[in-house]
Amino acid sequence: MTTAVLDESQIPTHWYNIVADFPTPPPPPLHPGTREPLVPDDLAAIFPMGLILQEASTERWIEIPAPVRELYRLWRPSPLRRAVRLEEALGTTARIYYKYEGASPVGSHKTNSAVAQAYYNAQAGIKRLATETGAGQWGSALAFACQAFGLACDVWQVRGSYDGKPYRRMLMETYGARVTASPSEVTETGRALRERFPDTSGSLGMAISEAVEVAAGDPDANYSLGSVLNHVLLHQTVIGQEALTQIGMFDEEQVDVLFGCAGGGSNLAGLSFPFIRENLEGRSATRIVACEPKAAPSLTEGEYTYDFGDTAHLTPLLKMYSLGAEFVPDPVHAGGLRYHGMAPLVSHAYHEGLLEAIAIKQREAFAAGVLFANAEGIVPASESNHAIAGALREARRATEAGESPVILIGVSGNGQLDLPAYAEYLSGDMLDS
Amino acid sequence: MTTAVLDESQIPTHWYNIVADFPTPPPPPLHPGTREPLVPDDLAAIFPMGLILQEASTERWIEIPAPVRELYRLWRPSPLRRAVRLEEALGTTARIYYKYEGASPVGSHKTNSAVAQAYYNAQAGIKRLATETGAGQWGSALAFACQAFGLACDVWQVRGSYDGKPYRRMLMETYGARVTASPSEVTETGRALRERFPDTSGSLGMAISEAVEVAAGDPDANYSLGSVLNHVLLHQTVIGQEALTQIGMFDEEQVDVLFGCAGGGSNLAGLSFPFIRENLEGRSATRIVACEPKAAPSLTEGEYTYDFGDTAHLTPLLKMYSLGAEFVPDPVHAGGLRYHGMAPLVSHAYHEGLLEAIAIKQREAFAAGVLFANAEGIVPASESNHAIAGALREARRATEAGESPVILIGVSGNGQLDLPAYAEYLSGDMLDS
Repeated sequence: MTTAVLDESQIPTHWYNIVADFPTPPPPPLHPGTREPLVPDDLAAIFPMGLILQEASTERWIEIPAPVRELYRLWRPSPLRRAVRLEEALGTTARIYYKYEGASPVGSHKTNSAVAQAYYNAQAGIKRLATETGAGQWGSALAFACQAFGLACDVWQVRGSYDGKPYRRMLMETYGARVTASPSEVTETGRALRERFPDTSGSLGMAISEAVEVAAGDPDANYSLGSVLNHVLLHQTVIGQEALTQIGMFDEEQVDVLFGCAGGGSNLAGLSFPFIRENLEGRSATRIVACEPKAAPSLTEGEYTYDFGDTAHLTPLLKMYSLGAEFVPDPVHAGGLRYHGMAPLVSHAYHEGLLEAIAIKQREAFAAGVLFANAEGIVPASESNHAIAGALREARRATEAGESPVILIGVSGNGQLDLPAYAEYLSGDMLDS
Repeated sequence: MTTAVLDESQIPTHWYNIVADFPTPPPPPLHPGTREPLVPDDLAAIFPMGLILQEASTERWIEIPAPVRELYRLWRPSPLRRAVRLEEALGTTARIYYKYEGASPVGSHKTNSAVAQAYYNAQAGIKRLATETGAGQWGSALAFACQAFGLACDVWQVRGSYDGKPYRRMLMETYGARVTASPSEVTETGRALRERFPDTSGSLGMAISEAVEVAAGDPDANYSLGSVLNHVLLHQTVIGQEALTQIGMFDEEQVDVLFGCAGGGSNLAGLSFPFIRENLEGRSATRIVACEPKAAPSLTEGEYTYDFGDTAHLTPLLKMYSLGAEFVPDPVHAGGLRYHGMAPLVSHAYHEGLLEAIAIKQREAFAAGVLFANAEGIVPASESNHAIAGALREARRATEAGESPVILIGVSGNGQLDLPAYAEYLSGDMLDS
């Protein structure tokens, strides 16, 4: 068997909340003015109560609403495959599997949270969602989700991606969203940022500031975030739950090492948190490895501190590994990973020793991506290439040591819209940031 | 249930050859010099014997070689879904299903034949394949297949697509192929065509001429065609065989009307020929509707005659519905459908009354594609939009008449790399060719 196929009755019925299982509770978010722990009402201006309650929840299992589960059926359960041809290409003694989220409508895992967020906002009577997007994966996921629930969608897209990745903008517009390059002239924050940094190619932190400003100023609008926050990570745990079932179908005792790319953290968390639970319950000893880009190495080089989630300091203070809210990463191709911080729950897990982290330069990432594409057919997203590169390091190490670990890669998306980055890599002109 | 899931043990073991079941035999291809029926040796300069024998075969079932079936596992079986949300969006009384080939590595059905062709050529000791591509779907499929079997791959891409669709070229290059815009300065045919038509945006007929010239002149190289010929259609019949099994899982008695887009004919044939067999055996009465672009209406406006497959008259004479080998269609976005003729087996089936045909303009096609994308999430390929548009006509007719037919759409590919065409449609600037 090379593919573990599940049918729609096996889509998880609940999201898994790791907060219930952490040996120590994660530090709470703080109000930026008082520096006191946030209370739910502090977030009510920009989030619906359904999501605020999830943000603060300590329940282990949270039921997935039926309309969200119905939408999940358009792309879930996602496949988990043994990378037989990749193993052959490497001549490795390792057994390599990958969980593939790239067959979703917009080509990435982001839809898992987008449809949930759009649902709770629609239930709360909200008419419009404002959001940021880096590479455009989150923006296109939310654009799809918004039209599915009858909401308007305003996307602030990091200027570098807006200019360099027109296809993702077109995809958002096909789903009816309005897309603006960030920093823009439309918001106060945007104008101030453009004055301070006239030549900036933008950043996720800046785009978040603009979207938050718009949402806070309109009672019919809310803000929606594609990663970092607890409720976003929660929604992604369908990935890991399915993967646990699927790995069992291959008669593997356990996954020995799991690799996921980590920008804001939602993809890594979604795949790995259910595996961390297995570890905490003593049922496995899976190493979890976060693969971040060397250009935005929040876990490996950042400080574990209370910091803002955005450049303009509009968000609550989050305890996280951060490079500083004003850090603007080099314009590497993995736009979805260009974030200054790391999700508080991933940061806490890292601080508690529940996961490891490595940083990977983009040429190594794309070399891995090209190898993967030629072996498995799928051209991975720029972000996913970091996880693949991490896995290749381990496969090569294991082969030299004569070991046969079970490796699981989270392939978070497909790279059909990242092809200019592949062309740049193949031409030899890619900067090794 | 909304998705009929099969596992890899249910990938068909044989290809289905409709020639064995036609009530009358299809007219044979003729040698262009003698106008006598071709003999296998006539094709030996550009095809391996394994494919030549399939081209002339009258056996009903042809076993799929194990290495090809192993590669199929990377994307087969493909999903068949009930389009619940599309039905809701239309408010239709029809029940609509779609068979989705767009989750294959390169995003279309073309890989089904590409890996088979690369396999037989590699078995025959060939080192290099030359081919044409319109939108780039066939070229990227063959590029992937060639590297899987260790062959070099030379693609002549229709100039209009080469210039307008750089992403598909980058995809081919990621798989290691060499891509040249056609007509080119590299071949005699290309130079002659550029002299006669200096401003031409190219055509599939021209690109075929160039690839055939190159393959015929190099003993280590063969030619590979992405549609039209019997063996190509044969390889695609895995689609329809799976679809028959999957429709049965929904407890539908039969498909009442099947819609497939038709350019060269391989996608339509692959989905519909197993259904035509059911009709011929008296087990169903499924209407088969070929949806061609109004810009290249070979079935609906062409002549059923012996014609060349290419512009330079290098190919055998094929009995087919044709607009003439020198016909150059308007540069519509469905590059994969811009062919002057129609596969001889599809032409024969049409002539014998076993299938119907309609022609659809591109604005109607893209309107259908946008509706489909917003309902089902998937952005369909430009080509597939023609099949969806045909199905929407039938769904609307049925709703007005108060009928509930079972409709099956062949969604041959995804349109992530066709997004500029969607942007043009949404801007209102698309010509209604």
